[in-house]
Amino acid sequence: MSRWMSILAVVMIVISAVIRFTHGSETLQFFASAVAIIPLAAMMGQATESIAAHAGPRLGGLLSATFGNAVELIIGIFSLEQGLFSLVKASITGSIIGNLLFVLGLSFFVGGIRHPIQYFNLRVARSNASMLMLGVGIAFVVPSIFALAPHEQNYALSFGVAAVSLVIYILGLFFSLFTHREVSAYIEDEAAETEGAGHEEVKYRLWPAVIVLLISTVLVSIESDWLVENVKSIAAGLGWSEVFIGVVVVAIIGNAAEHASAVWMAWKNRMDLSLEIAVGSTLQVAMFIAPVLFFVSLMMGNPFELVFSWPELISMIAAVLLVVILMLDGESNWLEGAMAVGAYLVLAVGFYTLHTA
Amino acid sequence: MSRWMSILAVVMIVISAVIRFTHGSETLQFFASAVAIIPLAAMMGQATESIAAHAGPRLGGLLSATFGNAVELIIGIFSLEQGLFSLVKASITGSIIGNLLFVLGLSFFVGGIRHPIQYFNLRVARSNASMLMLGVGIAFVVPSIFALAPHEQNYALSFGVAAVSLVIYILGLFFSLFTHREVSAYIEDEAAETEGAGHEEVKYRLWPAVIVLLISTVLVSIESDWLVENVKSIAAGLGWSEVFIGVVVVAIIGNAAEHASAVWMAWKNRMDLSLEIAVGSTLQVAMFIAPVLFFVSLMMGNPFELVFSWPELISMIAAVLLVVILMLDGESNWLEGAMAVGAYLVLAVGFYTLHTA
Amino acid sequence: MSRWMSILAVVMIVISAVIRFTHGSETLQFFASAVAIIPLAAMMGQATESIAAHAGPRLGGLLSATFGNAVELIIGIFSLEQGLFSLVKASITGSIIGNLLFVLGLSFFVGGIRHPIQYFNLRVARSNASMLMLGVGIAFVVPSIFALAPHEQNYALSFGVAAVSLVIYILGLFFSLFTHREVSAYIEDEAAETEGAGHEEVKYRLWPAVIVLLISTVLVSIESDWLVENVKSIAAGLGWSEVFIGVVVVAIIGNAAEHASAVWMAWKNRMDLSLEIAVGSTLQVAMFIAPVLFFVSLMMGNPFELVFSWPELISMIAAVLLVVILMLDGESNWLEGAMAVGAYLVLAVGFYTLHTA
Repeated sequence: MSRWMSILAVVMIVISAVIRFTHGSETLQFFASAVAIIPLAAMMGQATESIAAHAGPRLGGLLSATFGNAVELIIGIFSLEQGLFSLVKASITGSIIGNLLFVLGLSFFVGGIRHPIQYFNLRVARSNASMLMLGVGIAFVVPSIFALAPHEQNYALSFGVAAVSLVIYILGLFFSLFTHREVSAYIEDEAAETEGAGHEEVKYRLWPAVIVLLISTVLVSIESDWLVENVKSIAAGLGWSEVFIGVVVVAIIGNAAEHASAVWMAWKNRMDLSLEIAVGSTLQVAMFIAPVLFFVSLMMGNPFELVFSWPELISMIAAVLLVVILMLDGESNWLEGAMAVGAYLVLAVGFYTLHTA
Repeated sequence: MSRWMSILAVVMIVISAVIRFTHGSETLQFFASAVAIIPLAAMMGQATESIAAHAGPRLGGLLSATFGNAVELIIGIFSLEQGLFSLVKASITGSIIGNLLFVLGLSFFVGGIRHPIQYFNLRVARSNASMLMLGVGIAFVVPSIFALAPHEQNYALSFGVAAVSLVIYILGLFFSLFTHREVSAYIEDEAAETEGAGHEEVKYRLWPAVIVLLISTVLVSIESDWLVENVKSIAAGLGWSEVFIGVVVVAIIGNAAEHASAVWMAWKNRMDLSLEIAVGSTLQVAMFIAPVLFFVSLMMGNPFELVFSWPELISMIAAVLLVVILMLDGESNWLEGAMAVGAYLVLAVGFYTLHTA
Repeated sequence: MSRWMSILAVVMIVISAVIRFTHGSETLQFFASAVAIIPLAAMMGQATESIAAHAGPRLGGLLSATFGNAVELIIGIFSLEQGLFSLVKASITGSIIGNLLFVLGLSFFVGGIRHPIQYFNLRVARSNASMLMLGVGIAFVVPSIFALAPHEQNYALSFGVAAVSLVIYILGLFFSLFTHREVSAYIEDEAAETEGAGHEEVKYRLWPAVIVLLISTVLVSIESDWLVENVKSIAAGLGWSEVFIGVVVVAIIGNAAEHASAVWMAWKNRMDLSLEIAVGSTLQVAMFIAPVLFFVSLMMGNPFELVFSWPELISMIAAVLLVVILMLDGESNWLEGAMAVGAYLVLAVGFYTLHTA
């Protein structure tokens, strides 16, 4: 599979480069860059996992937790450079509802077709539920709602929220890697067991992994730059809004590889791994990528407020509340999966019907 | 009891017909029609249950799940014909908060007076909780909130939401009648046990049941037509808003018979049956009646958007969240019942104070 | 400790009186009165507890449940007299988010540092969760949201809500003191056990307690009057809004003593007591103090609507939902505490950035 991905990556990079330098269709180039990023993101992910495996469980956990969504960070930074603030916020929204509703829903559904009832660790699920309520339900809601009232110092509030989110995220890592290791330790056992079977875990040795990581990061950066540079005119041409592109297109690109492995884990009845990918990725975007992007924008001298539109806000809250209720029983079945996917479809149609903001 | 209901039905039909054809008080006729529908609805319900009993558990479950709230569907269709969109949406709202807060609350309260703590099946409660979040918390919220932003293709979003709700509702039936029958099967055992004692379950034999169903459906249709034809002038005369009539009056008419049996089951400590009536009825209105009414309005060439007002939306969400928290422990007591009834009173007063919309 | 508090109280009363009668800085007097109230509130609390201990468990429970937050009631009444409606509502908001997020969060955090996982009674936690949803999530939300729509008879709705809240609060006392005593009885055992060790429970004998209660109530009333009389000019001078003073300053003054004991109980691993102080205090403010203040304002002939601003509303709902999720597993750890405190910080920064309303 790895070889096919490399070939796909090379082919798409060449196509997008050719279109770009021959001044071909901007829309075609956009989609070529989008497709090119998918296998590159998968390679970055595998390289990160390999390095993490060599680094031992604690440092490795830290590595995955910070570089796991590096693609979204890179696309976000290039979007900020272009001043595409609504694209950045829309892709954060899309990443959150996509991971929570589409990825988790599909995992529950696909796993549920094979196994009537699937179980996962309740304590981890509850801890994740509270984190989601804080990281999305409070950290994103408060600046957006307070911005409705007459106020000053917008950046002060965004700054405070970003700082608190980041600190709690780091405390959460400290909790699961140090003080309460036993809670999450069996997930790693399960992971070792599952992946050990095919010896897939360590795709690369240490130095090759570092090299793959460096090269794929550079390539993702280039393609991300090309992806976002014409986003406004492409959106206009397709009749889509910048928000729809962010919520649906950009959010899918950065997460496609993880999506596949979450569903695959569910099919193999490894629900804890599946949940960790889907919910862990959501938390990372909300409590790590979003605050870091805010601080980056601050350093660029062109800060953006962490203020979301009503549709974005309501979508994220609805997704969090539905998933919290689905998770808190420690069980899943195909109907729960169908509900989550159904909710994702409703939201995707909703964003499609919104005019260009 | 059946005889008294038939007599009441006949008397009220005669009264409402006399008032109508002698051009008497519109307000009196409105209330006569309203009272006439209550026993007719009960007869429709009994006939449906009898046919369902003859049809076996699967086909029977399907029948109850589609015809169980036929009265609300009929009143809804006649309201659509008159273009009374706010009445339709208000009666959906009223049906949902009435079933969740008033019926369930009264059941918990009445049952709790006799039994200190009452238990119900946790798995069913959790599945219902997720369904409520999707069918009300997402399907009703998304079109209403997205309508606040500049948008196009309103009917596209309502169409998407209605289609998804209906599909998930059907998948839910498939889940409980086919793939995960064991989860709900014991409810039927309990039902058989309870009702078998008095041999009440099968009120009618098959053909008489079909005839009773047909006649009572025709009569309900006539009375529904009479009920809604003057609703605007009656509302104005009483100083009530169309919304208040929908939320309180219409919602009570269609559900009175079910209300009585849910409370009766709770008194007999059959909490699973009680919950199935109250929550099942809510889900049916949200995920079956509401989408079907949308599609009917589309076919009539005068579609209405599934967009609710803030008070309607907040009432439904508050009802869902309170009931989810009350249900998720698998237990009830009289205080929980009092809380739900108290919440219903707060909402009813709220709707009473709203001006004509 | 008791002696030091008395000395602090006397010193601060003298200072505030001197500043006031020599027409010194209003701001200094405000802070002197604020600091004076803290030890006086603690003395009122101890006197109430002592009288309650003499009165036996039932009457005593009733006493604590009605006089436990008397300081907030007194400050509230003096604020109403000055027509400071936003201060009253802000201090209700602050009391609720302060108790739920800051006090409970700090208790979880401090207790969690010493004990990896702490447990509390699930049934009480669930009952509290439903009460919070009703008393805050419905009783405060409905009047505020319905006020957005065109409406009449505002006071009718506030009246209905206040009456329902008060009735349910009283039913809740009846539930825990009479019909379902066994649920909460073991909390008292635990309390007796904990406090019995140091023989601290009964600080005063009956008559001295009554005298201490009377004197401290009179002194708190005087200081509260001085506290609120110049609040508007002080707020302007400090560049703070009336809302910020209500949410942060006033809310902390009335609760400081309880805050300390909730955290102390958590440190001693008596989580049920800790929860009872934090959540019980929240419910008392929402379902007893707020309705009583409304009825008092009605009798004063200058009623205030129970209508909160968006930031206040969203803060209270977010706090309730986060705490409900944190409580419903019957366990706590330091990370959960950090999350709640983090959420409090986000909200405090938010209120700080709001302009004078």
